Amino acid sequence: MKLVRFDGGAGARAGMVIGDAVVDLEPLGFLDLLSVVREGVGALARITDFAASAASVPMASVRLLAPIERPGKYLAIGMNYRKHVEEGAKLGIAEPKKQLWFNKQTTSIAGPFDGILKPDVSDQIDYEAELGVVIGKAAKHVSAADAPAHIFGYFVANDVSTRDWQFHSQTMTMGKSFDTHGPIGPWIVTADEIADPHDLPIRCLVNGEERQSSNTGMMLHNIYEQIEYLSTAFTLEPGDLIATGTPEGVGIAMDPPVFLKVGDIVRCEIDGVGAIENPVVAEAR
Amino acid sequence: MKLVRFDGGAGARAGMVIGDAVVDLEPLGFLDLLSVVREGVGALARITDFAASAASVPMASVRLLAPIERPGKYLAIGMNYRKHVEEGAKLGIAEPKKQLWFNKQTTSIAGPFDGILKPDVSDQIDYEAELGVVIGKAAKHVSAADAPAHIFGYFVANDVSTRDWQFHSQTMTMGKSFDTHGPIGPWIVTADEIADPHDLPIRCLVNGEERQSSNTGMMLHNIYEQIEYLSTAFTLEPGDLIATGTPEGVGIAMDPPVFLKVGDIVRCEIDGVGAIENPVVAEAR
Repeated sequence: MKLVRFDGGAGARAGMVIGDAVVDLEPLGFLDLLSVVREGVGALARITDFAASAASVPMASVRLLAPIERPGKYLAIGMNYRKHVEEGAKLGIAEPKKQLWFNKQTTSIAGPFDGILKPDVSDQIDYEAELGVVIGKAAKHVSAADAPAHIFGYFVANDVSTRDWQFHSQTMTMGKSFDTHGPIGPWIVTADEIADPHDLPIRCLVNGEERQSSNTGMMLHNIYEQIEYLSTAFTLEPGDLIATGTPEGVGIAMDPPVFLKVGDIVRCEIDGVGAIENPVVAEAR
Repeated sequence: MKLVRFDGGAGARAGMVIGDAVVDLEPLGFLDLLSVVREGVGALARITDFAASAASVPMASVRLLAPIERPGKYLAIGMNYRKHVEEGAKLGIAEPKKQLWFNKQTTSIAGPFDGILKPDVSDQIDYEAELGVVIGKAAKHVSAADAPAHIFGYFVANDVSTRDWQFHSQTMTMGKSFDTHGPIGPWIVTADEIADPHDLPIRCLVNGEERQSSNTGMMLHNIYEQIEYLSTAFTLEPGDLIATGTPEGVGIAMDPPVFLKVGDIVRCEIDGVGAIENPVVAEAR
Protein backbone atom coordinates (compact mmCIF):
# COMPACT_ATOMS: atom_id res chain seq x y z
CA MET A 1 0.00 0.00 0.00
CA LYS A 2 1.15 3.54 -0.77
CA LEU A 3 0.06 6.26 1.66
CA VAL A 4 0.30 9.98 0.96
CA ARG A 5 -0.38 13.31 2.53
CA PHE A 6 -1.88 15.69 0.04
CA ASP A 7 -3.71 18.96 -0.39
CA GLY A 8 -6.50 18.96 -2.92
CA GLY A 9 -7.70 22.41 -1.94
CA ALA A 10 -9.31 21.55 1.39
CA GLY A 11 -6.13 21.51 3.46
CA ALA A 12 -3.82 18.66 4.40
CA ARG A 13 -5.33 15.19 4.10
CA ALA A 14 -4.15 11.60 4.37
CA GLY A 15 -4.71 9.38 1.38
CA MET A 16 -4.18 5.98 -0.19
CA VAL A 17 -2.77 5.78 -3.71
CA ILE A 18 -4.64 3.62 -6.24
CA GLY A 19 -2.97 3.77 -9.63
CA ASP A 20 -2.88 7.43 -10.62
CA ALA A 21 -5.53 8.44 -8.10
CA VAL A 22 -5.79 9.19 -4.41
CA VAL A 23 -8.51 8.14 -1.98
CA ASP A 24 -9.08 10.66 0.82
CA LEU A 25 -9.02 8.90 4.21
CA GLU A 26 -10.83 11.68 6.07
CA PRO A 27 -14.08 9.62 6.33
CA LEU A 28 -12.07 7.06 8.35
CA GLY A 29 -10.96 9.77 10.75
CA PHE A 30 -7.38 9.88 9.43
CA LEU A 31 -6.20 13.42 8.72
CA ASP A 32 -2.50 12.57 8.79
CA LEU A 33 -0.29 9.51 8.46
CA LEU A 34 1.11 9.60 12.00
CA SER A 35 -2.31 8.48 13.25
CA VAL A 36 -2.30 5.65 10.69
CA VAL A 37 1.20 4.56 11.76
CA ARG A 38 0.22 4.66 15.42
CA GLU A 39 -2.84 2.49 14.84
CA GLY A 40 -0.77 0.00 12.84
CA VAL A 41 -2.01 -3.05 10.95
CA GLY A 42 -5.59 -2.52 12.06
CA ALA A 43 -5.56 0.83 10.27
CA LEU A 44 -4.23 -0.75 7.08
CA ALA A 45 -7.05 -3.30 7.07
CA ARG A 46 -9.66 -0.58 7.55
CA ILE A 47 -8.10 1.51 4.79
CA THR A 48 -8.08 -1.42 2.36
CA ASP A 49 -11.76 -2.12 3.04
CA PHE A 50 -12.73 1.52 2.71
CA ALA A 51 -10.74 2.20 -0.44
CA ALA A 52 -12.34 -0.73 -2.28
CA SER A 53 -15.54 1.29 -2.76
CA ALA A 54 -14.46 4.90 -2.13
CA ALA A 55 -14.28 7.78 -4.60
CA SER A 56 -10.85 9.05 -5.63
CA VAL A 57 -9.31 12.13 -7.21
CA PRO A 58 -6.56 12.19 -9.86
CA MET A 59 -3.16 12.49 -8.21
CA ALA A 60 -2.22 15.10 -10.82
CA SER A 61 -4.90 17.38 -9.37
CA VAL A 62 -3.47 17.50 -5.85
CA ARG A 63 -0.23 18.68 -4.23
CA LEU A 64 1.68 15.94 -2.45
CA LEU A 65 3.01 16.91 1.00
CA ALA A 66 5.71 15.36 3.19
CA PRO A 67 4.14 12.05 4.28
CA ILE A 68 5.10 12.82 7.89
CA GLU A 69 5.77 16.46 8.66
CA ARG A 70 6.72 16.52 12.33
CA PRO A 71 7.96 13.11 13.47
CA GLY A 72 9.25 12.76 17.00
CA LYS A 73 12.71 12.44 15.53
CA TYR A 74 14.44 12.22 12.16
CA LEU A 75 17.76 10.42 12.43
CA ALA A 76 20.29 9.92 9.66
CA ILE A 77 23.43 7.81 9.36
CA GLY A 78 26.60 9.11 7.73
CA MET A 79 29.30 7.24 5.80
CA ASN A 80 27.25 4.10 5.32
CA TYR A 81 28.23 3.07 1.78
CA ARG A 82 31.79 1.85 1.11
CA LYS A 83 32.45 4.00 -1.97
CA HIS A 84 31.02 7.07 -0.21
CA VAL A 85 33.45 6.42 2.64
CA GLU A 86 36.23 6.27 0.02
CA GLU A 87 35.25 9.56 -1.62
CA GLY A 88 35.01 11.07 1.87
CA ALA A 89 38.52 9.88 2.72
CA LYS A 90 39.87 11.91 -0.22
CA LEU A 91 38.31 14.98 1.43
CA GLY A 92 39.99 14.15 4.74
CA ILE A 93 36.92 12.63 6.42
CA ALA A 94 37.89 9.73 8.67
CA GLU A 95 36.01 6.44 8.43
CA PRO A 96 33.84 6.11 11.54
CA LYS A 97 34.50 3.16 13.84
CA LYS A 98 30.85 2.81 14.80
CA GLN A 99 27.57 3.78 13.18
CA LEU A 100 27.71 7.57 12.73
CA TRP A 101 24.34 9.10 13.59
CA PHE A 102 23.12 12.68 13.48
CA ASN A 103 19.75 14.39 13.58
CA LYS A 104 18.02 16.20 10.82
CA GLN A 105 15.87 18.78 12.63
CA THR A 106 12.21 18.01 12.01
CA THR A 107 11.82 21.61 10.80
CA SER A 108 13.94 20.70 7.75
CA ILE A 109 11.26 18.34 6.41
CA ALA A 110 9.72 19.38 3.09
CA GLY A 111 7.36 17.86 0.55
CA PRO A 112 8.42 15.56 -2.31
CA PHE A 113 8.19 18.31 -4.94
CA ASP A 114 8.82 21.39 -2.80
CA GLY A 115 11.63 23.84 -3.42
CA ILE A 116 15.01 23.41 -1.75
CA LEU A 117 16.00 26.86 -0.45
CA LYS A 118 19.53 27.96 -1.28
CA PRO A 119 20.33 30.09 1.74
CA ASP A 120 22.14 33.40 1.39
CA VAL A 121 24.88 32.24 3.75
CA SER A 122 26.19 29.36 1.66
CA ASP A 123 27.00 28.36 -1.92
CA GLN A 124 27.77 24.75 -0.96
CA ILE A 125 24.38 23.03 -1.16
CA ASP A 126 24.63 19.34 -2.01
CA TYR A 127 22.30 16.35 -2.54
CA GLU A 128 22.30 12.91 -0.91
CA ALA A 129 19.76 10.34 -2.11
CA GLU A 130 18.79 7.90 0.65
CA LEU A 131 16.30 5.18 1.45
CA GLY A 132 14.08 6.34 4.32
CA VAL A 133 12.46 4.14 6.96
CA VAL A 134 9.31 4.86 8.99
CA ILE A 135 9.22 3.18 12.39
CA GLY A 136 5.96 1.35 13.14
CA LYS A 137 5.84 -0.38 16.52
CA ALA A 138 7.91 1.33 19.22
CA ALA A 139 11.40 -0.16 19.42
CA LYS A 140 13.62 -0.40 22.53
CA HIS A 141 16.28 -3.09 22.88
CA VAL A 142 15.26 -4.63 19.57
CA SER A 143 17.71 -7.07 18.00
CA ALA A 144 18.51 -6.94 14.30
CA ALA A 145 16.64 -10.22 13.91
CA ASP A 146 13.49 -8.68 15.39
CA ALA A 147 13.83 -5.28 13.68
CA PRO A 148 11.70 -5.98 10.57
CA ALA A 149 8.56 -6.17 12.73
CA HIS A 150 9.17 -2.54 13.81
CA ILE A 151 9.27 -1.08 10.29
CA PHE A 152 6.06 0.49 9.02
CA GLY A 153 7.33 1.42 5.59
CA TYR A 154 9.80 3.17 3.32
CA PHE A 155 10.21 6.45 1.46
CA VAL A 156 12.75 8.36 -0.64
CA ALA A 157 14.81 11.03 1.14
CA ASN A 158 17.18 13.72 -0.02
CA ASP A 159 19.53 14.50 2.88
CA VAL A 160 20.33 17.95 1.49
CA SER A 161 23.58 19.18 3.03
CA THR A 162 25.09 22.64 3.35
CA ARG A 163 28.71 21.52 3.27
CA ASP A 164 30.55 24.52 4.75
CA TRP A 165 28.08 24.67 7.65
CA GLN A 166 28.22 20.88 8.01
CA PHE A 167 31.93 21.22 8.75
CA HIS A 168 31.50 24.11 11.21
CA SER A 169 31.73 21.42 13.85
CA GLN A 170 32.24 17.70 14.22
CA THR A 171 28.58 17.05 14.98
CA MET A 172 27.34 18.22 11.54
CA THR A 173 24.17 19.53 13.24
CA MET A 174 23.97 22.89 11.52
CA GLY A 175 24.65 21.93 7.91
CA LYS A 176 22.20 19.05 7.74
CA SER A 177 19.08 20.92 8.75
CA PHE A 178 18.54 24.19 6.94
CA ASP A 179 14.82 24.76 6.47
CA THR A 180 13.51 22.76 3.45
CA HIS A 181 16.66 20.60 3.36
CA GLY A 182 14.78 17.43 4.22
CA PRO A 183 12.44 16.66 1.31
CA ILE A 184 10.81 13.23 1.68
CA GLY A 185 8.22 11.17 -0.14
CA PRO A 186 6.55 10.92 -2.49
CA TRP A 187 4.62 8.53 -0.23
CA ILE A 188 5.20 5.83 2.33
CA VAL A 189 5.32 2.36 0.79
CA THR A 190 4.26 -0.10 3.47
CA ALA A 191 6.84 -2.72 4.39
CA ASP A 192 4.83 -5.63 2.98
CA GLU A 193 5.39 -4.26 -0.54
CA ILE A 194 9.19 -4.32 -0.30
CA ALA A 195 10.46 -7.89 -0.55
CA ASP A 196 14.02 -6.90 0.39
CA PRO A 197 14.90 -3.31 1.38
CA HIS A 198 18.57 -4.20 0.86
CA ASP A 199 18.22 -4.87 -2.85
CA LEU A 200 16.87 -1.62 -4.29
CA PRO A 201 18.56 0.41 -7.05
CA ILE A 202 18.96 4.03 -5.86
CA ARG A 203 19.85 7.06 -7.99
CA CYS A 204 20.19 10.83 -7.87
CA LEU A 205 19.92 12.97 -11.00
CA VAL A 206 20.61 16.69 -11.31
CA ASN A 207 18.96 18.30 -14.33
CA GLY A 208 18.59 14.79 -15.76
CA GLU A 209 22.29 13.92 -15.36
CA GLU A 210 22.94 10.86 -13.23
CA ARG A 211 25.15 11.73 -10.24
CA GLN A 212 24.53 8.82 -7.88
CA SER A 213 23.71 5.23 -8.84
CA SER A 214 24.03 2.37 -6.41
CA ASN A 215 21.97 -0.27 -4.63
CA THR A 216 20.75 -0.30 -1.02
CA GLY A 217 22.48 -3.66 -0.69
CA MET A 218 25.76 -1.74 -0.55
CA MET A 219 25.01 -0.34 2.93
CA LEU A 220 27.76 -1.03 5.45
CA HIS A 221 25.35 -1.23 8.39
CA ASN A 222 22.03 -2.58 7.18
CA ILE A 223 18.66 -1.24 8.31
CA TYR A 224 18.11 -3.95 10.91
CA GLU A 225 21.54 -3.35 12.47
CA GLN A 226 20.73 0.38 12.53
CA ILE A 227 17.52 -0.25 14.49
CA GLU A 228 19.35 -2.55 16.91
CA TYR A 229 22.05 0.04 17.62
CA LEU A 230 19.71 3.04 17.96
CA SER A 231 17.22 1.18 20.12
CA THR A 232 19.93 0.13 22.56
CA ALA A 233 20.16 3.77 23.63
CA PHE A 234 16.71 5.17 23.06
CA THR A 235 13.17 4.32 22.14
CA LEU A 236 12.25 4.63 18.49
CA GLU A 237 8.62 5.70 18.45
CA PRO A 238 5.88 5.16 15.85
CA GLY A 239 6.40 7.61 13.00
CA ASP A 240 10.07 8.30 13.76
CA LEU A 241 12.06 8.57 10.53
CA ILE A 242 15.48 7.17 9.64
CA ALA A 243 17.59 8.05 6.60
CA THR A 244 19.85 5.08 5.95
CA GLY A 245 22.85 6.70 4.28
CA THR A 246 23.84 7.90 0.82
CA PRO A 247 26.01 6.19 -1.80
CA GLU A 248 28.96 7.73 -3.66
CA GLY A 249 28.60 10.55 -6.15
CA VAL A 250 27.91 13.61 -3.99
CA GLY A 251 28.77 16.99 -5.49
CA ILE A 252 31.45 17.91 -2.95
CA ALA A 253 33.45 14.82 -3.98
CA MET A 254 33.50 15.73 -7.69
CA ASP A 255 36.77 17.15 -9.04
CA PRO A 256 36.36 20.07 -8.89
CA PRO A 257 33.39 20.08 -6.46
CA VAL A 258 30.04 20.96 -8.04
CA PHE A 259 27.30 22.35 -5.83
CA LEU A 260 23.62 22.91 -6.47
CA LYS A 261 22.58 26.28 -7.83
CA VAL A 262 19.27 28.07 -8.09
CA GLY A 263 17.25 26.60 -10.93
CA ASP A 264 18.67 23.07 -10.67
CA ILE A 265 16.23 20.17 -10.48
CA VAL A 266 17.26 17.36 -8.13
CA ARG A 267 15.61 13.99 -8.54
CA CYS A 268 16.12 11.10 -6.09
CA GLU A 269 14.63 7.74 -7.02
CA ILE A 270 14.55 4.25 -5.60
CA ASP A 271 13.12 1.37 -7.65
CA GLY A 272 10.05 -0.04 -5.96
CA VAL A 273 9.65 2.97 -3.69
CA GLY A 274 9.28 6.04 -5.89
CA ALA A 275 10.87 9.37 -6.78
CA ILE A 276 10.99 12.89 -5.36
CA GLU A 277 12.02 15.88 -7.45
CA ASN A 278 12.89 19.26 -5.98
CA PRO A 279 13.88 22.52 -7.64
CA VAL A 280 16.55 24.65 -5.98
CA VAL A 281 15.12 28.10 -5.28
CA ALA A 282 16.56 31.32 -3.90
CA GLU A 283 15.85 32.29 -0.32
CA ALA A 284 13.38 35.16 -0.25
CA ARG A 285 14.04 37.56 2.65
CA MET B 1 5.43 33.35 36.61
CA LYS B 2 6.33 29.71 37.18
CA LEU B 3 4.50 27.16 35.03
CA VAL B 4 4.46 23.43 35.71
CA ARG B 5 3.14 20.21 34.33
CA PHE B 6 1.89 17.98 37.09
CA ASP B 7 -0.16 14.92 37.89
CA GLY B 8 -2.40 15.21 40.93
CA GLY B 9 -4.12 11.89 40.22
CA ALA B 10 -6.25 12.98 37.26
CA GLY B 11 -3.54 12.68 34.61
CA ALA B 12 -1.17 15.29 33.22
CA ARG B 13 -2.20 18.90 33.74
CA ALA B 14 -0.72 22.34 33.23
CA GLY B 15 -0.43 24.58 36.26
CA MET B 16 0.76 27.87 37.66
CA VAL B 17 2.82 27.89 40.84
CA ILE B 18 1.73 30.20 43.66
CA GLY B 19 4.00 29.84 46.66
CA ASP B 20 3.88 26.17 47.66
CA ALA B 21 0.70 25.50 45.71
CA VAL B 22 -0.35 24.81 42.13
CA VAL B 23 -3.35 26.19 40.25
CA ASP B 24 -4.72 23.77 37.65
CA LEU B 25 -5.13 25.55 34.30
CA GLU B 26 -7.56 23.00 32.86
CA PRO B 27 -10.55 25.41 33.20
CA LEU B 28 -8.68 27.76 30.82
CA GLY B 29 -8.38 24.97 28.25
CA PHE B 30 -4.66 24.46 28.87
CA LEU B 31 -3.77 20.80 29.38
CA ASP B 32 -0.08 21.25 28.60
CA LEU B 33 2.48 24.05 28.47
CA LEU B 34 3.14 23.82 24.71
CA SER B 35 -0.31 25.34 24.15
CA VAL B 36 0.52 28.13 26.62
CA VAL B 37 3.83 28.83 24.88
CA ARG B 38 2.16 28.87 21.47
CA GLU B 39 -0.47 31.37 22.61
CA GLY B 40 2.22 33.57 24.16
CA VAL B 41 1.70 36.72 26.21
CA GLY B 42 -2.07 36.61 25.82
CA ALA B 43 -2.05 33.28 27.59
CA LEU B 44 0.03 34.64 30.46
CA ALA B 45 -2.44 37.49 30.99
CA ARG B 46 -5.36 35.07 31.05
CA ILE B 47 -3.54 32.79 33.48
CA THR B 48 -2.75 35.68 35.83
CA ASP B 49 -6.39 36.79 35.87
CA PHE B 50 -7.66 33.27 36.40
CA ALA B 51 -5.19 32.34 39.14
CA ALA B 52 -6.09 35.40 41.22
CA SER B 53 -9.32 33.74 42.33
CA ALA B 54 -8.79 30.04 41.54
CA ALA B 55 -8.43 27.15 43.96
CA SER B 56 -5.05 25.51 44.33
CA VAL B 57 -3.56 22.26 45.60
CA PRO B 58 -0.39 21.86 47.66
CA MET B 59 2.60 21.20 45.40
CA ALA B 60 3.73 18.48 47.78
CA SER B 61 0.59 16.53 46.91
CA VAL B 62 1.29 16.30 43.19
CA ARG B 63 3.99 14.78 40.99
CA LEU B 64 5.80 17.33 38.84
CA LEU B 65 6.33 16.26 35.22
CA ALA B 66 8.70 17.52 32.54
CA PRO B 67 7.33 21.00 31.73
CA ILE B 68 7.46 20.16 28.02
CA GLU B 69 7.56 16.49 27.18
CA ARG B 70 7.78 16.36 23.39
CA PRO B 71 9.15 19.63 21.99
CA GLY B 72 9.76 19.86 18.26
CA LYS B 73 13.46 19.80 19.04
CA TYR B 74 15.81 19.78 22.02
CA LEU B 75 19.20 21.22 21.09
CA ALA B 76 22.26 21.41 23.31
CA ILE B 77 25.61 23.15 22.98
CA GLY B 78 28.87 21.50 23.98
CA MET B 79 32.08 23.03 25.33
CA ASN B 80 30.51 26.39 26.16
CA TYR B 81 32.27 27.27 29.45
CA ARG B 82 36.01 28.07 29.39
CA LYS B 83 37.01 25.83 32.31
CA HIS B 84 34.94 22.97 30.89
CA VAL B 85 36.84 23.38 27.61
CA GLU B 86 40.05 23.20 29.64
CA GLU B 87 39.07 20.02 31.49
CA GLY B 88 37.98 18.59 28.12
CA ALA B 89 41.37 19.40 26.61
CA LYS B 90 43.04 17.19 29.24
CA LEU B 91 40.84 14.34 27.95
CA GLY B 92 41.95 15.01 24.38
CA ILE B 93 38.80 16.87 23.30
CA ALA B 94 39.62 19.67 20.88
CA GLU B 95 38.19 23.14 21.44
CA PRO B 96 35.52 23.73 18.81
CA LYS B 97 36.03 26.62 16.39
CA LYS B 98 32.32 27.37 16.15
CA GLN B 99 29.35 26.75 18.39
CA LEU B 100 29.17 22.97 18.84
CA TRP B 101 25.54 21.81 18.66
CA PHE B 102 23.99 18.39 19.04
CA ASN B 103 20.48 17.06 19.61
CA LYS B 104 19.14 15.42 22.68
CA GLN B 105 16.41 13.13 21.35
CA THR B 106 13.05 14.27 22.66
CA THR B 107 12.51 10.72 23.96
CA SER B 108 15.26 11.37 26.53
CA ILE B 109 13.17 13.99 28.34
CA ALA B 110 12.19 13.10 31.91
CA GLY B 111 10.55 14.83 34.86
CA PRO B 112 12.39 16.96 37.42
CA PHE B 113 12.37 14.23 40.08
CA ASP B 114 12.23 11.12 37.88
CA GLY B 115 14.83 8.38 37.97
CA ILE B 116 17.85 8.45 35.67
CA LEU B 117 18.18 4.94 34.23
CA LYS B 118 21.66 3.44 34.39
CA PRO B 119 21.63 1.26 31.29
CA ASP B 120 23.09 -2.23 31.31
CA VAL B 121 25.44 -1.35 28.45
CA SER B 122 27.44 1.35 30.23
CA ASP B 123 29.03 2.22 33.57
CA GLN B 124 29.97 5.75 32.44
CA ILE B 125 26.90 7.80 33.28
CA ASP B 126 27.71 11.45 34.02
CA TYR B 127 25.88 14.66 34.97
CA GLU B 128 25.92 18.10 33.32
CA ALA B 129 23.96 20.93 34.98
CA GLU B 130 22.74 23.47 32.42
CA LEU B 131 20.46 26.46 32.07
CA GLY B 132 17.61 25.57 29.72
CA VAL B 133 15.78 27.97 27.41
CA VAL B 134 12.23 27.64 26.05
CA ILE B 135 11.66 29.33 22.70
CA GLY B 136 8.57 31.53 22.58
CA LYS B 137 7.95 33.29 19.27
CA ALA B 138 9.27 31.39 16.22
CA ALA B 139 12.80 32.50 15.34
CA LYS B 140 14.38 32.53 11.86
CA HIS B 141 17.19 34.92 10.97
CA VAL B 142 17.02 36.52 14.41
CA SER B 143 19.98 38.66 15.45
CA ALA B 144 21.46 38.41 18.93
CA ALA B 145 20.05 41.86 19.64
CA ASP B 146 16.53 40.69 18.81
CA ALA B 147 16.84 37.27 20.46
CA PRO B 148 15.44 38.16 23.91
CA ALA B 149 11.98 38.71 22.39
CA HIS B 150 11.97 35.05 21.26
CA ILE B 151 12.60 33.55 24.70
CA PHE B 152 9.54 32.32 26.60
CA GLY B 153 11.34 31.22 29.73
CA TYR B 154 13.99 29.18 31.49
CA PHE B 155 14.40 25.86 33.27
CA VAL B 156 17.05 23.67 34.86
CA ALA B 157 18.43 20.81 32.74
CA ASN B 158 20.67 17.87 33.45
CA ASP B 159 22.32 16.86 30.16
CA VAL B 160 22.99 13.33 31.40
CA SER B 161 25.73 11.78 29.28
CA THR B 162 26.77 8.18 28.71
CA ARG B 163 30.43 8.88 28.07
CA ASP B 164 31.60 5.73 26.31
CA TRP B 165 28.63 5.87 23.94
CA GLN B 166 29.11 9.63 23.52
CA PHE B 167 32.53 8.91 22.07
CA HIS B 168 31.33 6.12 19.77
CA SER B 169 31.34 8.80 17.11
CA GLN B 170 32.18 12.44 16.62
CA THR B 171 28.53 13.49 16.57
CA MET B 172 27.86 12.42 20.20
CA THR B 173 24.31 11.47 19.16
CA MET B 174 24.07 8.13 20.92
CA GLY B 175 25.54 8.97 24.33
CA LYS B 176 23.49 12.10 24.94
CA SER B 177 20.05 10.58 24.56
CA PHE B 178 19.52 7.38 26.46
CA ASP B 179 15.92 7.21 27.66
CA THR B 180 15.44 9.31 30.86
CA HIS B 181 18.77 11.12 30.32
CA GLY B 182 17.12 14.48 29.80
CA PRO B 183 15.48 15.47 33.10
CA ILE B 184 14.19 19.06 33.02
CA GLY B 185 12.24 21.37 35.29
CA PRO B 186 11.11 21.79 37.92
CA TRP B 187 9.06 24.37 36.03
CA ILE B 188 9.42 27.04 33.39
CA VAL B 189 10.21 30.46 34.83
CA THR B 190 8.92 33.05 32.38
CA ALA B 191 11.55 35.38 30.95
CA ASP B 192 10.19 38.48 32.69
CA GLU B 193 11.25 37.02 36.06
CA ILE B 194 14.91 36.67 35.09
CA ALA B 195 16.59 40.08 35.04
CA ASP B 196 19.77 38.71 33.44
CA PRO B 197 20.06 35.06 32.35
CA HIS B 198 23.83 35.55 32.14
CA ASP B 199 24.27 36.20 35.84
CA LEU B 200 22.88 33.09 37.54
CA PRO B 201 24.84 30.86 39.95
CA ILE B 202 24.61 27.23 38.76
CA ARG B 203 25.54 24.11 40.69
CA CYS B 204 25.44 20.32 40.55
CA LEU B 205 25.56 18.19 43.69
CA VAL B 206 25.87 14.40 43.89
CA ASN B 207 24.69 12.95 47.21
CA GLY B 208 24.98 16.46 48.62
CA GLU B 209 28.60 16.93 47.51
CA GLU B 210 29.17 19.93 45.26
CA ARG B 211 30.64 18.86 41.91
CA GLN B 212 29.90 21.85 39.70
CA SER B 213 29.67 25.50 40.77
CA SER B 214 29.82 28.33 38.28
CA ASN B 215 27.76 31.19 36.90
CA THR B 216 25.89 31.39 33.60
CA GLY B 217 27.87 34.55 32.91
CA MET B 218 30.83 32.29 32.15
CA MET B 219 29.28 31.01 28.90
CA LEU B 220 31.56 31.43 25.88
CA HIS B 221 28.64 31.92 23.46
CA ASN B 222 25.79 33.61 25.27
CA ILE B 223 22.15 32.65 24.84
CA TYR B 224 21.41 35.43 22.36
CA GLU B 225 24.38 34.47 20.17
CA GLN B 226 23.17 30.88 20.30
CA ILE B 227 19.73 31.86 19.00
CA GLU B 228 21.29 33.97 16.25
CA TYR B 229 23.51 31.13 15.06
CA LEU B 230 20.85 28.41 15.21
CA SER B 231 18.19 30.54 13.55
CA THR B 232 20.48 31.31 10.62
CA ALA B 233 20.11 27.69 9.57
CA PHE B 234 16.69 26.66 10.80
CA THR B 235 13.51 27.89 12.38
CA LEU B 236 13.29 27.63 16.15
CA GLU B 237 9.64 26.97 16.90
CA PRO B 238 7.55 27.78 19.98
CA GLY B 239 8.33 25.25 22.68
CA ASP B 240 11.68 24.18 21.24
CA LEU B 241 14.22 23.63 24.03
CA ILE B 242 17.87 24.67 24.24
CA ALA B 243 20.43 23.52 26.81
CA THR B 244 23.07 26.22 26.99
CA GLY B 245 26.15 24.26 28.07
CA THR B 246 27.65 22.93 31.29
CA PRO B 247 30.46 24.36 33.42
CA GLU B 248 33.52 22.50 34.69
CA GLY B 249 33.35 19.70 37.23
CA VAL B 250 31.92 16.76 35.29
CA GLY B 251 32.67 13.29 36.62
CA ILE B 252 34.69 12.11 33.61
CA ALA B 253 37.18 14.97 34.21
CA MET B 254 37.85 14.00 37.83
CA ASP B 255 41.14 12.23 38.55
CA PRO B 256 40.39 9.37 38.50
CA PRO B 257 37.03 9.70 36.72
CA VAL B 258 33.98 9.17 38.90
CA PHE B 259 30.73 8.11 37.28
CA LEU B 260 27.20 7.95 38.62
CA LYS B 261 26.08 4.70 40.19
CA VAL B 262 22.71 3.27 41.10
CA GLY B 263 21.46 4.93 44.28
CA ASP B 264 23.17 8.28 43.71
CA ILE B 265 21.07 11.43 43.98
CA VAL B 266 21.92 14.14 41.43
CA ARG B 267 20.77 17.68 42.12
CA CYS B 268 21.09 20.51 39.60
CA GLU B 269 20.19 24.00 40.77
CA ILE B 270 20.22 27.50 39.36
CA ASP B 271 19.53 30.49 41.59
CA GLY B 272 16.37 32.26 40.51
CA VAL B 273 15.23 29.33 38.41
CA GLY B 274 14.94 26.28 40.66
CA ALA B 275 16.31 22.80 41.27
CA ILE B 276 15.78 19.31 39.90
CA GLU B 277 16.85 16.19 41.76
CA ASN B 278 17.04 12.76 40.20
CA PRO B 279 17.98 9.39 41.66
CA VAL B 280 20.01 7.00 39.53
CA VAL B 281 18.12 3.74 39.15
CA ALA B 282 18.91 0.39 37.55
CA GLU B 283 17.43 -0.45 34.19
CA ALA B 284 14.69 -3.05 34.63
CA ARG B 285 14.53 -5.46 31.70
